Amino acid sequence: MPKIVAVIGAAEARPELREQAFAVGCAIAEQGATLICGGRGGVMEAVARGARTVGGHTIGVLPTYDRADANPYIEFVIATGMGHARNVIIVASADAVIALAGEAGTLSEIGLALKLGRPVVAIDAWREIRQVRRAIDPAAAVELALQLAR
Amino acid sequence: MPKIVAVIGAAEARPELREQAFAVGCAIAEQGATLICGGRGGVMEAVARGARTVGGHTIGVLPTYDRADANPYIEFVIATGMGHARNVIIVASADAVIALAGEAGTLSEIGLALKLGRPVVAIDAWREIRQVRRAIDPAAAVELALQLAR
Amino acid sequence: MPKIVAVIGAAEARPELREQAFAVGCAIAEQGATLICGGRGGVMEAVARGARTVGGHTIGVLPTYDRADANPYIEFVIATGMGHARNVIIVASADAVIALAGEAGTLSEIGLALKLGRPVVAIDAWREIRQVRRAIDPAAAVELALQLAR
Amino acid sequence: MPKIVAVIGAAEARPELREQAFAVGCAIAEQGATLICGGRGGVMEAVARGARTVGGHTIGVLPTYDRADANPYIEFVIATGMGHARNVIIVASADAVIALAGEAGTLSEIGLALKLGRPVVAIDAWREIRQVRRAIDPAAAVELALQLAR
Repeated sequence: MPKIVAVIGAAEARPELREQAFAVGCAIAEQGATLICGGRGGVMEAVARGARTVGGHTIGVLPTYDRADANPYIEFVIATGMGHARNVIIVASADAVIALAGEAGTLSEIGLALKLGRPVVAIDAWREIRQVRRAIDPAAAVELALQLAR
Repeated sequence: MPKIVAVIGAAEARPELREQAFAVGCAIAEQGATLICGGRGGVMEAVARGARTVGGHTIGVLPTYDRADANPYIEFVIATGMGHARNVIIVASADAVIALAGEAGTLSEIGLALKLGRPVVAIDAWREIRQVRRAIDPAAAVELALQLAR
Repeated sequence: MPKIVAVIGAAEARPELREQAFAVGCAIAEQGATLICGGRGGVMEAVARGARTVGGHTIGVLPTYDRADANPYIEFVIATGMGHARNVIIVASADAVIALAGEAGTLSEIGLALKLGRPVVAIDAWREIRQVRRAIDPAAAVELALQLAR
Repeated sequence: MPKIVAVIGAAEARPELREQAFAVGCAIAEQGATLICGGRGGVMEAVARGARTVGGHTIGVLPTYDRADANPYIEFVIATGMGHARNVIIVASADAVIALAGEAGTLSEIGLALKLGRPVVAIDAWREIRQVRRAIDPAAAVELALQLAR
Protein backbone atom coordinates (compact mmCIF):
# COMPACT_ATOMS: atom_id res chain seq x y z
CA MET A 1 0.00 0.00 0.00
CA PRO A 2 1.35 3.50 -0.79
CA LYS A 3 2.62 5.53 2.17
CA ILE A 4 0.43 8.32 3.52
CA VAL A 5 2.06 11.60 4.58
CA ALA A 6 0.20 14.15 6.69
CA VAL A 7 1.06 17.81 6.22
CA ILE A 8 0.02 20.23 8.95
CA GLY A 9 0.32 24.01 9.19
CA ALA A 10 -1.46 27.34 9.37
CA ALA A 11 -4.90 27.84 7.81
CA GLU A 12 -3.88 31.41 6.97
CA ALA A 13 -0.52 31.40 5.25
CA ARG A 14 1.70 34.08 3.69
CA PRO A 15 2.81 33.53 0.07
CA GLU A 16 6.24 32.09 1.01
CA LEU A 17 4.64 29.54 3.33
CA ARG A 18 2.12 28.60 0.66
CA GLU A 19 4.98 28.11 -1.82
CA GLN A 20 6.78 25.88 0.64
CA ALA A 21 3.58 23.84 1.17
CA PHE A 22 3.06 23.57 -2.58
CA ALA A 23 6.57 22.20 -3.00
CA VAL A 24 6.00 19.67 -0.21
CA GLY A 25 2.81 18.50 -1.92
CA CYS A 26 4.63 18.08 -5.24
CA ALA A 27 7.39 16.06 -3.59
CA ILE A 28 4.90 13.78 -1.80
CA ALA A 29 3.16 12.95 -5.07
CA GLU A 30 6.45 12.53 -6.93
CA GLN A 31 7.44 9.89 -4.37
CA GLY A 32 4.18 8.01 -5.02
CA ALA A 33 2.79 8.78 -1.57
CA THR A 34 -0.72 9.96 -0.71
CA LEU A 35 -1.31 13.30 1.06
CA ILE A 36 -3.63 13.65 4.04
CA CYS A 37 -4.37 17.06 5.58
CA GLY A 38 -7.09 19.10 7.24
CA GLY A 39 -8.78 19.88 3.93
CA ARG A 40 -9.20 23.63 4.35
CA GLY A 41 -7.22 26.77 3.37
CA GLY A 42 -3.67 28.09 3.71
CA VAL A 43 -1.07 25.34 4.05
CA MET A 44 -3.79 22.69 3.58
CA GLU A 45 -4.88 24.11 0.24
CA ALA A 46 -1.37 24.79 -1.08
CA VAL A 47 -0.04 21.35 -0.26
CA ALA A 48 -3.08 19.66 -1.83
CA ARG A 49 -2.70 21.80 -4.93
CA GLY A 50 0.93 20.68 -5.17
CA ALA A 51 0.08 17.01 -4.82
CA ARG A 52 -2.74 17.20 -7.39
CA THR A 53 -0.52 19.10 -9.83
CA VAL A 54 1.77 16.07 -9.96
CA GLY A 55 -1.18 13.63 -10.10
CA GLY A 56 -1.05 12.38 -6.52
CA HIS A 57 -4.01 11.42 -4.34
CA THR A 58 -5.23 13.85 -1.66
CA ILE A 59 -7.41 13.22 1.40
CA GLY A 60 -8.90 16.07 3.45
CA VAL A 61 -10.27 15.48 6.96
CA LEU A 62 -12.73 18.29 7.71
CA PRO A 63 -13.84 19.50 11.16
CA THR A 64 -17.38 20.04 9.83
CA TYR A 65 -20.15 17.88 8.34
CA ASP A 66 -20.15 19.83 5.06
CA ARG A 67 -18.07 18.38 2.24
CA ALA A 68 -18.30 21.75 0.49
CA ASP A 69 -15.92 23.14 3.13
CA ALA A 70 -13.02 21.29 1.48
CA ASN A 71 -10.62 23.16 -0.76
CA PRO A 72 -10.85 22.31 -4.48
CA TYR A 73 -7.68 20.19 -4.46
CA ILE A 74 -9.07 17.56 -2.08
CA GLU A 75 -9.93 14.36 -3.93
CA PHE A 76 -11.39 12.39 -1.01
CA VAL A 77 -13.26 14.43 1.60
CA ILE A 78 -13.79 12.98 5.08
CA ALA A 79 -16.46 15.02 6.89
CA THR A 80 -16.11 14.37 10.61
CA GLY A 81 -18.21 17.07 12.28
CA MET A 82 -15.87 16.60 15.24
CA GLY A 83 -14.13 19.97 15.35
CA HIS A 84 -10.55 19.85 16.56
CA ALA A 85 -10.85 16.15 17.41
CA ARG A 86 -10.34 15.63 13.69
CA ASN A 87 -6.67 16.55 14.28
CA VAL A 88 -6.20 13.11 15.82
CA ILE A 89 -7.47 11.43 12.65
CA ILE A 90 -5.13 13.35 10.34
CA VAL A 91 -1.97 12.25 12.12
CA ALA A 92 -3.19 8.76 13.10
CA SER A 93 -3.94 7.97 9.46
CA ALA A 94 -0.44 8.95 8.32
CA ASP A 95 2.81 7.01 8.26
CA ALA A 96 4.71 10.24 8.87
CA VAL A 97 3.92 13.92 9.46
CA ILE A 98 5.49 17.06 8.00
CA ALA A 99 4.92 20.17 10.16
CA LEU A 100 5.10 23.56 8.49
CA ALA A 101 4.68 26.88 10.32
CA GLY A 102 1.44 27.14 12.23
CA GLU A 103 -0.25 28.05 15.47
CA ALA A 104 -1.83 26.17 18.37
CA GLY A 105 -3.79 23.79 16.13
CA THR A 106 -0.58 22.64 14.49
CA LEU A 107 1.06 22.31 17.91
CA SER A 108 -1.76 20.00 19.01
CA GLU A 109 -1.23 17.85 15.92
CA ILE A 110 2.49 17.57 16.63
CA GLY A 111 1.73 16.44 20.19
CA LEU A 112 -0.81 13.89 18.99
CA ALA A 113 1.54 12.56 16.29
CA LEU A 114 4.38 12.11 18.78
CA LYS A 115 2.00 10.43 21.24
CA LEU A 116 0.94 7.99 18.51
CA GLY A 117 4.54 7.30 17.49
CA ARG A 118 4.27 8.95 14.09
CA PRO A 119 7.58 10.61 13.10
CA VAL A 120 7.36 14.39 12.69
CA VAL A 121 9.63 16.35 10.33
CA ALA A 122 9.80 20.15 10.20
CA ILE A 123 11.63 22.47 7.83
CA ASP A 124 12.17 25.75 9.61
CA ALA A 125 9.45 25.88 12.23
CA TRP A 126 8.90 24.15 15.59
CA ARG A 127 12.52 24.27 16.76
CA GLU A 128 11.18 24.47 20.33
CA ILE A 129 9.82 20.91 20.18
CA ARG A 130 12.77 18.63 20.83
CA GLN A 131 11.37 15.40 19.29
CA VAL A 132 10.69 17.01 15.88
CA ARG A 133 13.22 16.06 13.19
CA ARG A 134 14.75 18.70 10.88
CA ALA A 135 15.06 18.92 7.09
CA ILE A 136 16.51 21.76 5.04
CA ASP A 137 13.91 22.01 2.26
CA PRO A 138 10.64 20.46 1.04
CA ALA A 139 12.28 17.64 -0.93
CA ALA A 140 14.51 16.69 2.00
CA ALA A 141 11.53 16.80 4.39
CA VAL A 142 9.52 14.38 2.26
CA GLU A 143 12.52 12.10 1.82
CA LEU A 144 13.18 12.01 5.58
CA ALA A 145 9.48 11.53 6.39
CA LEU A 146 9.20 8.53 4.07
CA GLN A 147 12.41 7.08 5.42
CA LEU A 148 11.15 7.34 9.01
CA ALA A 149 7.69 5.99 8.10
CA ARG A 150 7.01 2.54 9.47
CA MET B 1 -16.61 15.55 -7.62
CA PRO B 2 -17.69 11.87 -7.73
CA LYS B 3 -20.47 10.87 -5.34
CA ILE B 4 -19.56 8.92 -2.22
CA VAL B 5 -21.80 6.06 -1.10
CA ALA B 6 -21.52 4.53 2.37
CA VAL B 7 -22.36 0.87 2.80
CA ILE B 8 -23.08 -0.38 6.32
CA GLY B 9 -23.82 -3.86 7.63
CA ALA B 10 -22.71 -6.74 9.80
CA ALA B 11 -19.01 -7.42 10.47
CA GLU B 12 -19.80 -11.14 10.49
CA ALA B 13 -21.82 -12.04 7.43
CA ARG B 14 -23.18 -15.28 5.96
CA PRO B 15 -22.24 -16.10 2.34
CA GLU B 16 -25.53 -14.76 0.86
CA LEU B 17 -25.08 -11.44 2.65
CA ARG B 18 -21.47 -11.21 1.48
CA GLU B 19 -22.63 -11.87 -2.09
CA GLN B 20 -25.21 -9.10 -1.79
CA ALA B 21 -22.55 -6.74 -0.44
CA PHE B 22 -20.17 -7.69 -3.26
CA ALA B 23 -22.86 -6.87 -5.83
CA VAL B 24 -23.52 -3.51 -4.17
CA GLY B 25 -19.81 -2.70 -4.31
CA CYS B 26 -19.64 -3.58 -8.01
CA ALA B 27 -22.67 -1.40 -8.76
CA ILE B 28 -21.23 1.58 -6.86
CA ALA B 29 -17.99 1.43 -8.86
CA GLU B 30 -19.83 0.87 -12.13
CA GLN B 31 -21.72 4.11 -11.50
CA GLY B 32 -18.44 5.95 -11.00
CA ALA B 33 -19.06 6.54 -7.30
CA THR B 34 -16.59 6.05 -4.44
CA LEU B 35 -17.28 3.60 -1.61
CA ILE B 36 -16.84 4.49 2.04
CA CYS B 37 -17.31 1.89 4.79
CA GLY B 38 -16.02 0.78 8.18
CA GLY B 39 -12.98 -0.90 6.67
CA ARG B 40 -13.19 -4.25 8.46
CA GLY B 41 -14.69 -7.69 7.74
CA GLY B 42 -18.02 -9.16 6.68
CA VAL B 43 -20.16 -6.71 4.71
CA MET B 44 -17.35 -4.15 4.80
CA GLU B 45 -14.85 -6.49 3.18
CA ALA B 46 -17.25 -7.92 0.59
CA VAL B 47 -18.48 -4.52 -0.58
CA ALA B 48 -14.93 -3.19 -0.87
CA ARG B 49 -13.87 -6.27 -2.82
CA GLY B 50 -16.77 -5.67 -5.21
CA ALA B 51 -15.87 -2.02 -5.73
CA ARG B 52 -12.18 -2.77 -6.29
CA THR B 53 -13.00 -5.60 -8.70
CA VAL B 54 -14.62 -3.02 -10.99
CA GLY B 55 -11.80 -0.52 -10.43
CA GLY B 56 -13.61 1.85 -8.07
CA HIS B 57 -12.08 3.78 -5.18
CA THR B 58 -12.61 2.52 -1.60
CA ILE B 59 -12.22 4.36 1.71
CA GLY B 60 -12.27 2.53 5.07
CA VAL B 61 -12.81 4.39 8.34
CA LEU B 62 -11.35 2.25 11.12
CA PRO B 63 -12.26 2.37 14.83
CA THR B 64 -8.60 1.76 15.74
CA TYR B 65 -5.28 3.54 15.23
CA ASP B 66 -3.79 0.63 13.30
CA ARG B 67 -4.00 0.82 9.51
CA ALA B 68 -3.24 -2.90 9.38
CA ASP B 69 -6.75 -3.55 10.74
CA ALA B 70 -8.23 -2.65 7.35
CA ASN B 71 -9.33 -5.39 4.98
CA PRO B 72 -7.16 -5.82 1.85
CA TYR B 73 -9.69 -4.12 -0.46
CA ILE B 74 -9.46 -0.73 1.27
CA GLU B 75 -7.49 1.71 -0.86
CA PHE B 76 -7.51 4.69 1.53
CA VAL B 77 -7.44 3.85 5.24
CA ILE B 78 -8.60 6.43 7.78
CA ALA B 79 -7.42 5.39 11.25
CA THR B 80 -9.54 7.22 13.80
CA GLY B 81 -8.85 5.43 17.09
CA MET B 82 -12.31 6.66 18.10
CA GLY B 83 -14.18 3.37 18.45
CA HIS B 84 -17.86 3.55 17.57
CA ALA B 85 -17.67 7.33 17.14
CA ARG B 86 -16.17 6.52 13.76
CA ASN B 87 -19.70 5.50 12.69
CA VAL B 88 -20.56 9.20 12.50
CA ILE B 89 -17.70 9.82 10.06
CA ILE B 90 -18.73 7.02 7.70
CA VAL B 91 -22.23 8.36 7.14
CA ALA B 92 -21.35 12.06 7.36
CA SER B 93 -18.78 11.66 4.57
CA ALA B 94 -21.31 10.02 2.24
CA ASP B 95 -23.88 11.51 -0.11
CA ALA B 96 -26.12 8.50 0.51
CA VAL B 97 -26.09 5.35 2.61
CA ILE B 98 -26.98 1.74 1.72
CA ALA B 99 -27.88 -0.38 4.77
CA LEU B 100 -27.52 -4.14 4.51
CA ALA B 101 -28.41 -6.60 7.27
CA GLY B 102 -26.62 -5.88 10.53
CA GLU B 103 -26.90 -5.49 14.26
CA ALA B 104 -26.83 -2.60 16.73
CA GLY B 105 -23.81 -0.93 15.14
CA THR B 106 -25.61 -0.71 11.82
CA LEU B 107 -28.71 0.61 13.58
CA SER B 108 -26.63 3.39 15.12
CA GLU B 109 -25.32 4.32 11.67
CA ILE B 110 -28.86 4.46 10.25
CA GLY B 111 -29.88 6.79 13.09
CA LEU B 112 -26.85 9.03 12.55
CA ALA B 113 -27.37 9.14 8.78
CA LEU B 114 -31.03 10.13 9.16
CA LYS B 115 -30.07 12.75 11.76
CA LEU B 116 -27.55 14.23 9.30
CA GLY B 117 -30.06 14.18 6.43
CA ARG B 118 -28.26 11.52 4.42
CA PRO B 119 -30.75 9.31 2.54
CA VAL B 120 -30.70 5.65 3.60
CA VAL B 121 -31.64 2.80 1.24
CA ALA B 122 -32.10 -0.82 2.33
CA ILE B 123 -32.67 -3.95 0.29
CA ASP B 124 -34.38 -6.50 2.52
CA ALA B 125 -33.38 -5.46 6.04
CA TRP B 126 -34.44 -2.66 8.40
CA ARG B 127 -38.15 -2.69 7.54
CA GLU B 128 -38.82 -1.57 11.11
CA ILE B 129 -37.24 1.84 10.49
CA ARG B 130 -39.87 3.94 8.74
CA GLN B 131 -37.58 6.56 7.14
CA VAL B 132 -35.43 3.97 5.33
CA ARG B 133 -36.14 3.71 1.59
CA ARG B 134 -36.54 0.32 -0.13
CA ALA B 135 -34.91 -1.21 -3.23
CA ILE B 136 -35.39 -4.69 -4.66
CA ASP B 137 -31.78 -5.60 -5.42
CA PRO B 138 -28.19 -4.26 -5.26
CA ALA B 139 -28.34 -2.44 -8.60
CA ALA B 140 -31.65 -0.78 -7.73
CA ALA B 141 -30.32 0.19 -4.30
CA VAL B 142 -27.29 1.95 -5.77
CA GLU B 143 -29.41 3.65 -8.43
CA LEU B 144 -31.87 4.94 -5.79
CA ALA B 145 -29.06 6.01 -3.45
CA LEU B 146 -27.37 8.05 -6.15
CA GLN B 147 -30.67 9.58 -7.21
CA LEU B 148 -31.45 10.65 -3.63
CA ALA B 149 -27.90 11.96 -3.04
CA ARG B 150 -27.83 15.70 -2.83
CA MET C 1 -19.79 4.42 43.14
CA PRO C 2 -23.38 5.60 42.42
CA LYS C 3 -24.95 4.25 39.24
CA ILE C 4 -25.23 6.56 36.24
CA VAL C 5 -28.40 6.49 34.15
CA ALA C 6 -28.54 8.09 30.69
CA VAL C 7 -31.85 9.53 29.53
CA ILE C 8 -32.26 10.16 25.81
CA GLY C 9 -35.13 11.69 23.83
CA ALA C 10 -36.33 14.54 21.67
CA ALA C 11 -34.81 18.03 21.93
CA GLU C 12 -38.22 19.47 21.15
CA ALA C 13 -40.84 17.88 23.38
CA ARG C 14 -44.57 18.38 23.93
CA PRO C 15 -45.75 19.07 27.51
CA GLU C 16 -46.73 15.43 28.20
CA LEU C 17 -43.30 14.19 27.12
CA ARG C 18 -41.60 16.83 29.24
CA GLU C 19 -43.70 15.72 32.22
CA GLN C 20 -42.68 12.12 31.64
CA ALA C 21 -39.01 13.15 31.43
CA PHE C 22 -39.35 15.22 34.62
CA ALA C 23 -40.77 12.19 36.46
CA VAL C 24 -37.91 10.01 35.18
CA GLY C 25 -35.40 12.55 36.46
CA CYS C 26 -37.05 12.64 39.88
CA ALA C 27 -37.01 8.85 40.11
CA ILE C 28 -33.33 8.63 39.13
CA ALA C 29 -32.35 11.06 41.87
CA GLU C 30 -34.63 9.40 44.41
CA GLN C 31 -32.79 6.13 43.76
CA GLY C 32 -29.47 7.84 44.45
CA ALA C 33 -28.29 7.55 40.85
CA THR C 34 -26.64 10.26 38.74
CA LEU C 35 -28.24 11.48 35.51
CA ILE C 36 -26.29 11.89 32.26
CA CYS C 37 -27.91 13.36 29.17
CA GLY C 38 -27.22 15.53 26.12
CA GLY C 39 -27.44 18.74 28.14
CA ARG C 40 -29.77 20.70 25.87
CA GLY C 41 -33.56 21.30 25.66
CA GLY C 42 -36.75 19.24 25.54
CA VAL C 43 -36.39 15.85 27.19
CA MET C 44 -32.82 16.72 28.24
CA GLU C 45 -33.90 19.83 30.12
CA ALA C 46 -37.00 18.29 31.72
CA VAL C 47 -35.19 15.21 33.00
CA ALA C 48 -32.35 17.31 34.43
CA ARG C 49 -34.87 19.62 36.11
CA GLY C 50 -36.49 16.56 37.70
CA ALA C 51 -33.22 15.18 38.99
CA ARG C 52 -32.09 18.54 40.41
CA THR C 53 -35.48 19.09 42.07
CA VAL C 54 -34.83 15.99 44.15
CA GLY C 55 -31.18 16.96 44.77
CA GLY C 56 -29.54 14.50 42.38
CA HIS C 57 -26.40 15.11 40.32
CA THR C 58 -26.73 15.90 36.60
CA ILE C 59 -24.13 15.67 33.82
CA GLY C 60 -24.73 17.16 30.36
CA VAL C 61 -22.59 16.15 27.38
CA LEU C 62 -22.83 18.95 24.80
CA PRO C 63 -22.19 18.68 21.06
CA THR C 64 -20.58 22.15 21.09
CA TYR C 65 -17.56 23.79 22.75
CA ASP C 66 -19.71 26.35 24.56
CA ARG C 67 -20.70 25.50 28.14
CA ALA C 68 -23.37 28.19 27.92
CA ASP C 69 -25.32 25.88 25.57
CA ALA C 70 -26.26 23.67 28.53
CA ASN C 71 -29.72 23.97 30.09
CA PRO C 72 -29.81 25.53 33.59
CA TYR C 73 -30.34 22.18 35.33
CA ILE C 74 -27.00 20.71 34.28
CA GLU C 75 -24.57 20.64 37.19
CA PHE C 76 -21.51 19.30 35.34
CA VAL C 77 -21.14 20.38 31.71
CA ILE C 78 -18.94 18.35 29.35
CA ALA C 79 -18.24 20.41 26.22
CA THR C 80 -17.14 18.04 23.49
CA GLY C 81 -17.32 20.08 20.27
CA MET C 82 -17.83 16.72 18.55
CA GLY C 83 -21.37 17.10 17.23
CA HIS C 84 -23.34 13.88 17.09
CA ALA C 85 -20.28 11.84 18.12
CA ARG C 86 -21.09 13.02 21.63
CA ASN C 87 -24.02 10.56 21.53
CA VAL C 88 -21.49 7.75 22.02
CA ILE C 89 -20.20 9.38 25.20
CA ILE C 90 -23.65 9.76 26.76
CA VAL C 91 -24.50 6.08 26.53
CA ALA C 92 -20.96 4.75 27.11
CA SER C 93 -20.74 6.65 30.40
CA ALA C 94 -24.01 5.17 31.69
CA ASP C 95 -24.74 1.88 33.46
CA ALA C 96 -28.18 1.83 31.81
CA VAL C 97 -30.16 3.96 29.34
CA ILE C 98 -33.79 5.10 29.41
CA ALA C 99 -35.14 6.01 25.96
CA LEU C 100 -38.10 8.38 25.76
CA ALA C 101 -39.80 9.43 22.53
CA GLY C 102 -37.41 10.96 20.04
CA GLU C 103 -36.21 11.07 16.46
CA ALA C 104 -33.17 9.87 14.55
CA GLY C 105 -30.68 11.18 17.13
CA THR C 106 -32.33 9.09 19.84
CA LEU C 107 -32.37 6.09 17.50
CA SER C 108 -28.61 6.45 17.02
CA GLU C 109 -28.12 6.48 20.79
CA ILE C 110 -30.20 3.32 21.20
CA GLY C 111 -28.06 1.60 18.57
CA LEU C 112 -24.83 2.72 20.22
CA ALA C 113 -26.04 1.68 23.69
CA LEU C 114 -26.99 -1.80 22.46
CA LYS C 115 -23.66 -2.10 20.65
CA LEU C 116 -21.84 -1.23 23.89
CA GLY C 117 -23.93 -3.68 25.92
CA ARG C 118 -25.74 -1.01 27.94
CA PRO C 119 -29.34 -2.09 28.73
CA VAL C 120 -32.00 0.16 27.18
CA VAL C 121 -35.44 0.64 28.75
CA ALA C 122 -38.32 2.46 27.07
CA ILE C 123 -41.73 3.44 28.39
CA ASP C 124 -44.07 3.81 25.41
CA ALA C 125 -41.76 4.56 22.50
CA TRP C 126 -39.35 2.48 20.38
CA ARG C 127 -41.53 -0.64 20.18
CA GLU C 128 -39.98 -1.29 16.78
CA ILE C 129 -36.56 -2.02 18.31
CA ARG C 130 -36.67 -5.58 19.56
CA GLN C 131 -33.80 -5.43 22.07
CA VAL C 132 -35.31 -2.51 24.00
CA ARG C 133 -36.90 -3.50 27.33
CA ARG C 134 -40.35 -2.15 28.35
CA ALA C 135 -41.60 -0.44 31.51
CA ILE C 136 -45.07 0.93 32.22
CA ASP C 137 -44.20 4.27 33.84
CA PRO C 138 -41.22 6.45 34.84
CA ALA C 139 -40.72 4.82 38.24
CA ALA C 140 -40.81 1.33 36.76
CA ALA C 141 -38.40 2.37 34.00
CA VAL C 142 -35.83 3.64 36.49
CA GLU C 143 -36.25 0.56 38.67
CA LEU C 144 -35.74 -1.77 35.71
CA ALA C 145 -32.79 0.26 34.39
CA LEU C 146 -31.00 0.09 37.73
CA GLN C 147 -31.74 -3.61 38.07
CA LEU C 148 -30.28 -4.31 34.60
CA ALA C 149 -27.24 -2.06 35.20
CA ARG C 150 -24.06 -4.02 35.59
CA MET D 1 -21.92 27.82 38.13
CA PRO D 2 -18.58 26.84 39.77
CA LYS D 3 -15.49 27.18 37.61
CA ILE D 4 -13.96 24.03 36.13
CA VAL D 5 -10.17 23.68 36.06
CA ALA D 6 -8.45 21.04 33.93
CA VAL D 7 -5.15 19.62 35.16
CA ILE D 8 -2.98 17.81 32.64
CA GLY D 9 0.33 15.98 33.02
CA ALA D 10 2.18 12.70 32.88
CA ALA D 11 0.40 9.38 33.50
CA GLU D 12 3.60 8.09 35.10
CA ALA D 13 4.85 10.57 37.64
CA ARG D 14 7.73 10.67 40.13
CA PRO D 15 6.85 11.34 43.79
CA GLU D 16 7.70 15.08 43.63
CA LEU D 17 5.43 15.54 40.61
CA ARG D 18 2.62 13.62 42.31
CA GLU D 19 3.03 15.87 45.39
CA GLN D 20 2.80 18.95 43.21
CA ALA D 21 -0.33 17.55 41.53
CA PHE D 22 -1.86 16.72 44.92
CA ALA D 23 -1.29 20.31 46.08
CA VAL D 24 -2.87 21.66 42.89
CA GLY D 25 -5.93 19.46 43.48
CA CYS D 26 -6.25 20.69 47.06
CA ALA D 27 -6.03 24.32 45.94
CA ILE D 28 -8.68 23.84 43.23
CA ALA D 29 -11.14 22.38 45.73
CA GLU D 30 -10.31 25.04 48.34
CA GLN D 31 -11.25 27.70 45.80
CA GLY D 32 -14.62 26.00 45.24
CA ALA D 33 -13.76 24.95 41.68
CA THR D 34 -14.36 21.54 40.09
CA LEU D 35 -11.48 19.45 38.73
CA ILE D 36 -11.55 17.81 35.32
CA CYS D 37 -8.73 15.53 34.18
CA GLY D 38 -7.98 12.41 32.14
CA GLY D 39 -9.12 10.10 34.94
CA ARG D 40 -6.17 7.72 34.98
CA GLY D 41 -2.87 7.45 36.93
CA GLY D 42 0.13 9.64 37.75
CA VAL D 43 -0.69 13.35 37.74
CA MET D 44 -4.36 12.54 37.06
CA GLU D 45 -4.70 10.36 40.15
CA ALA D 46 -2.71 12.63 42.47
CA VAL D 47 -4.61 15.78 41.53
CA ALA D 48 -7.96 14.02 41.94
CA ARG D 49 -6.89 12.68 45.31
CA GLY D 50 -5.99 16.23 46.37
CA ALA D 51 -9.33 17.64 45.27
CA ARG D 52 -11.34 14.87 46.96
CA THR D 53 -9.32 15.25 50.17
CA VAL D 54 -10.64 18.79 50.46
CA GLY D 55 -14.17 17.73 49.44
CA GLY D 56 -14.15 19.06 45.87
CA HIS D 57 -15.85 17.51 42.86
CA THR D 58 -13.75 15.56 40.33
CA ILE D 59 -14.54 14.57 36.73
CA GLY D 60 -12.42 12.06 34.79
CA VAL D 61 -12.64 11.81 31.00
CA LEU D 62 -11.40 8.34 30.03
CA PRO D 63 -10.04 7.25 26.62
CA THR D 64 -11.78 3.87 27.01
CA TYR D 65 -15.36 2.61 27.35
CA ASP D 66 -14.67 1.04 30.74
CA ARG D 67 -15.55 3.13 33.80
CA ALA D 68 -13.41 0.79 35.89
CA ASP D 69 -10.33 2.34 34.24
CA ALA D 70 -10.80 5.48 36.32
CA ASN D 71 -8.67 6.07 39.39
CA PRO D 72 -10.50 5.80 42.74
CA TYR D 73 -10.60 9.57 43.27
CA ILE D 74 -12.79 10.28 40.24
CA GLU D 75 -16.35 11.10 41.31
CA PHE D 76 -17.92 11.44 37.83
CA VAL D 77 -16.48 9.17 35.13
CA ILE D 78 -16.98 10.06 31.47
CA ALA D 79 -16.20 7.01 29.32
CA THR D 80 -15.53 8.21 25.79
CA GLY D 81 -13.94 5.23 24.01
CA MET D 82 -12.32 7.85 21.78
CA GLY D 83 -8.65 7.38 22.64
CA HIS D 84 -6.58 10.54 22.44
CA ALA D 85 -9.53 12.50 21.03
CA ARG D 86 -10.72 12.66 24.62
CA ASN D 87 -7.93 15.21 25.19
CA VAL D 88 -10.07 17.76 23.36
CA ILE D 89 -12.96 17.19 25.78
CA ILE D 90 -10.83 17.69 28.89
CA VAL D 91 -9.62 21.14 27.89
CA ALA D 92 -12.81 22.24 26.12
CA SER D 93 -14.85 21.54 29.26
CA ALA D 94 -12.58 23.67 31.43
CA ASP D 95 -12.52 27.41 32.10
CA ALA D 96 -8.73 27.22 32.52
CA VAL D 97 -5.98 24.62 32.28
CA ILE D 98 -3.02 23.92 34.57
CA ALA D 99 -0.19 22.04 32.82
CA LEU D 100 2.22 20.03 34.94
CA ALA D 101 5.21 18.11 33.60
CA GLY D 102 4.28 15.60 30.91
CA GLU D 103 5.05 14.19 27.52
CA ALA D 104 3.51 14.36 24.06
CA GLY D 105 -0.03 13.79 25.28
CA THR D 106 0.19 16.80 27.57
CA LEU D 107 1.70 18.83 24.72
CA SER D 108 -1.32 17.99 22.56
CA GLU D 109 -3.65 19.16 25.31
CA ILE D 110 -1.77 22.46 25.61
CA GLY D 111 -2.12 22.98 21.86
CA LEU D 112 -5.82 22.18 21.93
CA ALA D 113 -6.45 24.44 24.94
CA LEU D 114 -4.67 27.38 23.29
CA LYS D 115 -6.59 26.74 20.04
CA LEU D 116 -9.87 26.85 21.98
CA GLY D 117 -8.87 30.02 23.85
CA ARG D 118 -8.59 28.36 27.25
CA PRO D 119 -5.82 30.00 29.35
CA VAL D 120 -2.96 27.62 30.22
CA VAL D 121 -0.85 28.04 33.37
CA ALA D 122 2.31 26.03 34.10
CA ILE D 123 4.46 25.88 37.20
CA ASP D 124 7.93 24.77 36.15
CA ALA D 125 7.35 22.85 32.92
CA TRP D 126 6.57 23.86 29.33
CA ARG D 127 8.83 26.93 29.22
CA GLU D 128 9.29 26.26 25.50
CA ILE D 129 5.65 27.12 24.73
CA ARG D 130 5.47 30.89 24.59
CA GLN D 131 1.71 31.31 25.20
CA VAL D 132 1.75 29.36 28.49
CA ARG D 133 1.53 31.56 31.60
CA ARG D 134 3.83 30.98 34.61
CA ALA D 135 3.13 30.55 38.32
CA ILE D 136 5.62 29.86 41.11
CA ASP D 137 3.75 27.19 43.06
CA PRO D 138 0.46 25.18 43.09
CA ALA D 139 -1.54 27.79 44.99
CA ALA D 140 -0.36 30.59 42.68
CA ALA D 141 -1.14 28.46 39.62
CA VAL D 142 -4.72 27.85 40.72
CA GLU D 143 -5.17 31.52 41.62
CA LEU D 144 -3.88 32.66 38.23
CA ALA D 145 -5.93 30.03 36.37
CA LEU D 146 -9.16 31.14 38.05
CA GLN D 147 -8.33 34.79 37.44
CA LEU D 148 -7.75 34.14 33.72
CA ALA D 149 -10.88 31.95 33.42
CA ARG D 150 -13.58 33.66 31.42
